[in-house]
Amino acid sequence: MTIATALDTLSPLLGDRLSRSKSDLMAHGQSESYFPPMPPDAVAWPETVEEVSALARICSEHGCPIVPWGAGTSLEGHALAPQGGLCVDFARMNRLLEVHPEDMDAVAQPGLTREDLNRDLRATGLFFPVDPGANATLGGMAATRASGTTTVYHGTMAENVLGLQVVLADGRVIRTGTRARKSASGYDLTRLFIGSEGTLGLITELTLRLHGRPEAVSAAVCVFGAIPDAVECVIATIQSGIEVARIEFVDAATAAAVNAYSSGSFPEKPHLLVEFHGSEQGVSEQAQRFGDLAREMGGEGFRWSSQAEERSALWEMRHKAYWAVLASRKGARAVVTDLCVPISRLAEAVEETRADIDASPITGPIFGHTGDGNFHAILLIRDGVPEELEAAKAVSHRMVERALRMGGTVTGEHGVGMGKLDYMSAEHGDAWALMGDIKRVFDPTGILNPGKLIPPAG
Amino acid sequence: MTIATALDTLSPLLGDRLSRSKSDLMAHGQSESYFPPMPPDAVAWPETVEEVSALARICSEHGCPIVPWGAGTSLEGHALAPQGGLCVDFARMNRLLEVHPEDMDAVAQPGLTREDLNRDLRATGLFFPVDPGANATLGGMAATRASGTTTVYHGTMAENVLGLQVVLADGRVIRTGTRARKSASGYDLTRLFIGSEGTLGLITELTLRLHGRPEAVSAAVCVFGAIPDAVECVIATIQSGIEVARIEFVDAATAAAVNAYSSGSFPEKPHLLVEFHGSEQGVSEQAQRFGDLAREMGGEGFRWSSQAEERSALWEMRHKAYWAVLASRKGARAVVTDLCVPISRLAEAVEETRADIDASPITGPIFGHTGDGNFHAILLIRDGVPEELEAAKAVSHRMVERALRMGGTVTGEHGVGMGKLDYMSAEHGDAWALMGDIKRVFDPTGILNPGKLIPPAG
Repeated sequence: MTIATALDTLSPLLGDRLSRSKSDLMAHGQSESYFPPMPPDAVAWPETVEEVSALARICSEHGCPIVPWGAGTSLEGHALAPQGGLCVDFARMNRLLEVHPEDMDAVAQPGLTREDLNRDLRATGLFFPVDPGANATLGGMAATRASGTTTVYHGTMAENVLGLQVVLADGRVIRTGTRARKSASGYDLTRLFIGSEGTLGLITELTLRLHGRPEAVSAAVCVFGAIPDAVECVIATIQSGIEVARIEFVDAATAAAVNAYSSGSFPEKPHLLVEFHGSEQGVSEQAQRFGDLAREMGGEGFRWSSQAEERSALWEMRHKAYWAVLASRKGARAVVTDLCVPISRLAEAVEETRADIDASPITGPIFGHTGDGNFHAILLIRDGVPEELEAAKAVSHRMVERALRMGGTVTGEHGVGMGKLDYMSAEHGDAWALMGDIKRVFDPTGILNPGKLIPPAG
Repeated sequence: MTIATALDTLSPLLGDRLSRSKSDLMAHGQSESYFPPMPPDAVAWPETVEEVSALARICSEHGCPIVPWGAGTSLEGHALAPQGGLCVDFARMNRLLEVHPEDMDAVAQPGLTREDLNRDLRATGLFFPVDPGANATLGGMAATRASGTTTVYHGTMAENVLGLQVVLADGRVIRTGTRARKSASGYDLTRLFIGSEGTLGLITELTLRLHGRPEAVSAAVCVFGAIPDAVECVIATIQSGIEVARIEFVDAATAAAVNAYSSGSFPEKPHLLVEFHGSEQGVSEQAQRFGDLAREMGGEGFRWSSQAEERSALWEMRHKAYWAVLASRKGARAVVTDLCVPISRLAEAVEETRADIDASPITGPIFGHTGDGNFHAILLIRDGVPEELEAAKAVSHRMVERALRMGGTVTGEHGVGMGKLDYMSAEHGDAWALMGDIKRVFDPTGILNPGKLIPPAG
């Protein structure tokens, strides 16, 4: 009943696809979060669902923690191994298994990344819309209920996954959902696994809902004098029913960081970036309505494009935002925050956050998916300067309190992992204990991604 | 530990809002399904969440089954009381508690019906889109994951409920979700309760996602020579990305039934009924694209309207379909079926079903939400003629097998209740046992709506 005996038993099964090399352990013990490295005891690269089932059974018998690994892009330490154990890297289960263009769905393995999926789909005229920014794997995106820039139009992973194949802690393999577009057949296990962060089972296959590539796409960037004007324009856009495919906010500090990062010349003011999808006529009508509204609300410096290359140039600011902000302070790492509130409270939430950061000793550009009421402050801190980590944690803590006070959630899209564990009780009350009870049904010995999402034992 | 002692304990709490009168028991022991009446031992009309919590605690202590009741419109015997116990009728918890037009959401009690909700919302310019046909309660709609004619555009209850207040079996009151548009904060308990059919908890409050009333609505009816042409037109419409707000199919037998029911003069052939929502310009563009496509595929006899009254007249056939079909055979009752398949298999599924019914001794008009791959055959049988019930069950059984063979689900929208229990194992395999395990976390003594959805004990 030890990790060591589990790994000894796994070794003949996986051969050189089980590694205990220091470099492999370190590569799988890092994260994009501010937590220190927490490496596993070994890394496995299974190739089939049968192998995943066998390793789960063996780990279950020996009480060895299992930490699933996609692309390692999560921001709350989801794939760290605080209790050691086996990291299961899905890199070798990365195939697109089936595409059904006539049903607009596809079946993929969990290690396939969203960019590779969309490249493989190009010839079909279909695409998978969920875009969290990073080139994450589909398994990881499902496990964390990823969303991102297109969610205002196409929804999150919860709206875009029809079904799953999942390996349970004891090695049982189950299927949830079907290829039908809807079902009223029992508990929605698909949605229970989506967002469960590897704590209920290992996703080994996903049936994805695809969308037709729009006939026409039009994008625009516009500039506002102050944060409230830009955010009020987002609110008015959503409320007036203009069908934006994306509507993103970046603040002046983000624009400045992007200019420095890539010699840009964006005005160093708050921006909105919008995109419309549809027919030529529909897109142009919606874009015009947005333009009228934005100008009324003080938007200026409009740049429009319906050409792919020009659109990319317009969206450069948003696409580079995270890396530009990270590079804006030499040697800094980021504490990434993730607040989501009802849209009527958004301007207030952004302004309070901006003022709070400005009054702190650290910097923190703000950008986000404002159409959903969701934004991020990227709090920049230097390693080895504990006062800065403390200041960042304090700002983050006040953002969380703000979200709850305004009727929102402590995480719009980054998930709980280890980073938001302390706030689950405040958001969910008794329902958090219930999550722990559900977890024990799926994983009675607690081997699946321990230390994440549910209440700590004891 | 008996139902009788539970009711005696409840009596002082609820006063005349606890009834054991024969007429109340019979009214709450009926259903729209083919099951015989199964009355409860008493009916309660709670007025507050505190009363619901108290009655759950008392029933829990005494082992008394609880069967929640909304409007009694479910089709699979969800609200029958096969083990007796207490029926909890939410008729007195039917208030709209909050409307937040700026956030496009509202908070309602479970006994509010969808028509009453939309009447109350009229002045706001917003509406709640889920439309299962019957004027069901919102609590019942959430509990059965209702969908219907607008699902192709607006989704099911799963996409339109942001959060819930739920009373658990032991009387604990929890909240799921927030008023934020999205969240990655832990297990998706909201979606776990939606579709759980009263087996996990009693819904006492719902936070609903509202939508803007469209600026323009355009509706059309067209006629096809044969079923495959109409269904292929639906498939082509969905695949070509035309944004239909509704796209409904009715077969020749349904058209004939509506003519007989309301002296109509619809051609007695397969029809499609479509609706487009959006801006004046957008609606007219989409409608034109649909018209071109439908004509190419043999559609004729187009009637269009963008005026509210004329639209109602066009949609009369669909709105009256169920009652017209029911009236088409004197003294008959209906065995309602509910198949949902990937859309590429829809024409085949409808044709096979039509041929199967035509070869049987019973009649069964077909109509449905073909945009989602979902349709119903309304199998008409006479009470007291067991051969007809047997024939209907055999047709229904073959429809279910067809759905599974084609990669679909045994129930698109009507739910499991008692009617689809026998097919859960075939659809879900080991995942059905897992549903039973989840149920025991929420309701260890099995008092919540026993006999529905999960595997029978023992």
